[in-house]
Amino acid sequence: MKVLLTAFDPFGGEPVNPAQEAVAAVADSIAGAEIVKVVVPTVFGKSIDTVYEAMKRENPDVTFCIGQAGGRVGLTPERVAINLDDARIEDNEGNQPFDKTIFEDGKTAYFTTLPVKAMVAKIKEAGLPASVSYTAGTFVCNHLMYGVLYHISKEFPDMKGGFMHVPYLHEQVLNRANTPSLSKDDIVKGIEAAITAIVENA
Amino acid sequence: MKVLLTAFDPFGGEPVNPAQEAVAAVADSIAGAEIVKVVVPTVFGKSIDTVYEAMKRENPDVTFCIGQAGGRVGLTPERVAINLDDARIEDNEGNQPFDKTIFEDGKTAYFTTLPVKAMVAKIKEAGLPASVSYTAGTFVCNHLMYGVLYHISKEFPDMKGGFMHVPYLHEQVLNRANTPSLSKDDIVKGIEAAITAIVENA
Amino acid sequence: MKVLLTAFDPFGGEPVNPAQEAVAAVADSIAGAEIVKVVVPTVFGKSIDTVYEAMKRENPDVTFCIGQAGGRVGLTPERVAINLDDARIEDNEGNQPFDKTIFEDGKTAYFTTLPVKAMVAKIKEAGLPASVSYTAGTFVCNHLMYGVLYHISKEFPDMKGGFMHVPYLHEQVLNRANTPSLSKDDIVKGIEAAITAIVENA
Amino acid sequence: MKVLLTAFDPFGGEPVNPAQEAVAAVADSIAGAEIVKVVVPTVFGKSIDTVYEAMKRENPDVTFCIGQAGGRVGLTPERVAINLDDARIEDNEGNQPFDKTIFEDGKTAYFTTLPVKAMVAKIKEAGLPASVSYTAGTFVCNHLMYGVLYHISKEFPDMKGGFMHVPYLHEQVLNRANTPSLSKDDIVKGIEAAITAIVENA
Repeated sequence: MKVLLTAFDPFGGEPVNPAQEAVAAVADSIAGAEIVKVVVPTVFGKSIDTVYEAMKRENPDVTFCIGQAGGRVGLTPERVAINLDDARIEDNEGNQPFDKTIFEDGKTAYFTTLPVKAMVAKIKEAGLPASVSYTAGTFVCNHLMYGVLYHISKEFPDMKGGFMHVPYLHEQVLNRANTPSLSKDDIVKGIEAAITAIVENA
Repeated sequence: MKVLLTAFDPFGGEPVNPAQEAVAAVADSIAGAEIVKVVVPTVFGKSIDTVYEAMKRENPDVTFCIGQAGGRVGLTPERVAINLDDARIEDNEGNQPFDKTIFEDGKTAYFTTLPVKAMVAKIKEAGLPASVSYTAGTFVCNHLMYGVLYHISKEFPDMKGGFMHVPYLHEQVLNRANTPSLSKDDIVKGIEAAITAIVENA
Repeated sequence: MKVLLTAFDPFGGEPVNPAQEAVAAVADSIAGAEIVKVVVPTVFGKSIDTVYEAMKRENPDVTFCIGQAGGRVGLTPERVAINLDDARIEDNEGNQPFDKTIFEDGKTAYFTTLPVKAMVAKIKEAGLPASVSYTAGTFVCNHLMYGVLYHISKEFPDMKGGFMHVPYLHEQVLNRANTPSLSKDDIVKGIEAAITAIVENA
Repeated sequence: MKVLLTAFDPFGGEPVNPAQEAVAAVADSIAGAEIVKVVVPTVFGKSIDTVYEAMKRENPDVTFCIGQAGGRVGLTPERVAINLDDARIEDNEGNQPFDKTIFEDGKTAYFTTLPVKAMVAKIKEAGLPASVSYTAGTFVCNHLMYGVLYHISKEFPDMKGGFMHVPYLHEQVLNRANTPSLSKDDIVKGIEAAITAIVENA
């Protein structure tokens, strides 16, 4: 079994992205599955293209994308991606789409095909806070999740796909008032637990 | 240099107290200082008596107390303790004082004699979230901090004293919605950083 | 122009529902549009049936549903409803579906056909906090919003439909720690502003 | 009975101060007491001087000060003021004291002599969220509350004094994410309820 594990680079003025930091430290083999990692630019369009190329090249059993959701307290597997870009800030190349459809021939939304409740249960078993999320927002995270599930629906009938948001790292909140965060070790453990649940429920 | 480090036992229906769990794992020697640990019952009166006995027995240079503040995102050294018990819930022996003076011959409040800003800076240097707090509440935590500073003012002119609140452990929030938490490792590191700042600024 | 305005009854142990309290006080005519009001039981299935009957009976130009989202700070028009029931608590008749599809022949999701950004702008113009929400949850609120948009897509090609969540009333939070709320007057004004935007953008 | 009711002017870049807006609309007579209003500059030193002059001039039975605490959900009578200025931002004349004692011959802290629990109960009776607060911070609000209680302790043995924080107005949060607020009407009603409790418990 092969898992394509992707992580965004920093955006919104942050010096780091907890997804990228943690994914770099995730084990290369989890529960018998091979983990192939890709860093993804936080850019509308390019992010989907980058992962689509990796999906074709690697032909993984699972494409699992990780992104930052600053302000959340735990790891949150996403249940659904919607066909909508609507950006409150610019992406890393200055794009800021409003009310824009991602793929004209795509569905209004795609549900993830990953076992989000089993993932939450496994992350909690590992001693870390987690819950299912029902919105991935309307910025590049939802965009990529939607794009992955769109391409899976068109071309990769046997591949599973999904997305998980992770909180800020401690280092990102030292000068922010009252903002929750996790250590890199905790986020790494949470991602590995989520992948374990994905493998066990495949 | 000797530091008396105290931690409360669990209260309010919690199975654990992050202060007790973390203090048990703190090193026995930090920055050259000897650390002597005492577990304190979460009980009005008894908590102060327990620590007062230890202060007399151990004659430490510093008495530093740790307690749980569920809902906070980081470690929070307390600046001030007030002469007031006012309990929203019962303590571990069923006491629930309202609007009660702690020591009739005590001051309205005592400022800590620990270097709270240096402690916050050192905890952040260790990569963990921290900020100075200006209220330790009106439950047993404030009660103990007040009692320690009262006894210091009366009998131990060379001793320094203070209190730090720590967030919930992850295991305490797994079934709570939207509540921040830290790992035991992070809380241990934060307490050790705080003690390092205390020793360095003595 | 005719607007069918619906509001849920109380659920989850609350004595009141801010949606019901506020909708009862909304004007019967707004910006020239006639407002027809219906109270909806907080019950899976029955809620959709109740509103579907009203849609057939009243043949309104717009079906606009209001529900409670405890913990939110402002009024939040919903952008999307998803084909999923997943209940954390029982509804008012003891139903608690898990991972259940609402309509087998429905789309994965429907976007609202109401002008959510214009509604948010108008509510703010009226001096009240508002923002677009991208999740109506997976309880009866999302269920009803999904059902309304499903029936519109099947049978009412010219009708517009959507949903708005409103915060707790002050009276619901008097004994809750740190929970935001609005007055009934403010919620009424916010709903009337939202309807004004709907009429003006029709 | 005469109540001196003070309110700060805007600070920290805000266009308005909810305290000032609401106090201007408070009735001139409440529960038989005459209300005399004073606007106070948000400046260390000058704020206390302004109110001290008014205390000498008006010789009120009660000096009751109102200030903004952005981020709080309800009205919060303050229990205690501490002898410490420590400013995170500059005041309206560019002062930013750190770790500074307010009055060298003052006590470490003063408890309010207003009936804070009765005030909270009365505000709730009026249908508005309220709770006792145990920290007024270390900016100009605490500074003024401390100064009022200091001068009362020195010169006005029969005068009562205290402070209440109020949340942001709606207009202050329209472009802030997830920040609670109240209408001016609600804040006015809350202040009037608090004064009613003060008069009734005199």
